Amino acid sequence: MRVLGIDPGSRRTGWAIVDRQGSRFTVVASGVIQTDPGDPMPTRLREIHDGLRGVIAEHAPTAAALEEIFAHKSAASALVLGQARGVAMLAVSSLPLHTYNANTIKKTVTGSGTADKAQVGRMVAVHCGVEVRVADEADAIAIAITHHNHGGSPAPARRTSRRDMWTEIARRAGAIP
Amino acid sequence: MRVLGIDPGSRRTGWAIVDRQGSRFTVVASGVIQTDPGDPMPTRLREIHDGLRGVIAEHAPTAAALEEIFAHKSAASALVLGQARGVAMLAVSSLPLHTYNANTIKKTVTGSGTADKAQVGRMVAVHCGVEVRVADEADAIAIAITHHNHGGSPAPARRTSRRDMWTEIARRAGAIP
Repeated sequence: MRVLGIDPGSRRTGWAIVDRQGSRFTVVASGVIQTDPGDPMPTRLREIHDGLRGVIAEHAPTAAALEEIFAHKSAASALVLGQARGVAMLAVSSLPLHTYNANTIKKTVTGSGTADKAQVGRMVAVHCGVEVRVADEADAIAIAITHHNHGGSPAPARRTSRRDMWTEIARRAGAIP
Repeated sequence: MRVLGIDPGSRRTGWAIVDRQGSRFTVVASGVIQTDPGDPMPTRLREIHDGLRGVIAEHAPTAAALEEIFAHKSAASALVLGQARGVAMLAVSSLPLHTYNANTIKKTVTGSGTADKAQVGRMVAVHCGVEVRVADEADAIAIAITHHNHGGSPAPARRTSRRDMWTEIARRAGAIP
């Protein structure tokens, strides 16, 4: 199973293609589609849509995952975010789409539903053995990992409890021997 | 000049193709793209996008117009509206897009920036000589008329003042001889 995680935004849309073999995650490719705020919105939405279509054409993911948005700081910014999110959903409409709320994503990746962006970034690096410098890209990877763990890939042959999973992650991170 | 007016929404997206000859407006075609709230959102966004692409392919408008949204009742509904609006903007990204705020649209079509939906519907009927039963469709026609009057078609050969325009509209409506 190959998951396309997306963190849409009108300025920056993070995306990541993540594979899983057993308990290992591999970031096959990831990036950020950046648009110029000086360009007309239809042009920017076209870049987001076509950028994601290009990612799908190149990497052939079998599922897509997005963050579920319940609340937002203001109606005005929610409208603009909605526009980017709409074209992202359109771009992946050929794939099964799964959404997860922010708490589930944070909890899956860091163990805490209240983790901040930096913690998410660090744990993404631990999970995948890659360093990600852009938060939107790290978020997209985190969303893809969440789908692998929740609805995506079959569990490893030996059923791993949540505690086992954290022990394994801590070990890989060098926090315990 | 042929204008595609759009009133996007996740459930109902009104659209209208409006021509202008001199001071006359002609609704070449109009309709509503309805989506099933029971369907997954990507499917519904695909229907809105592909529906509008079909309208463009069939009627070859030379410009598109949308309502500018500044405020909205809630961030949650703004996000959902934004998604529909995003795919509508994507669908028309091959055309010059113009946006007008609600007050300008109402004032252009009814003479009052505080007109209600029923007044907009009635005045659209007067302008175009068609009866429109669906509010979303009437709104799409109103948006197209607004673009014709503001940035769209060249003014009639004899420059018509706003007062003249209202006199002409009232005459056509039978309100004055």
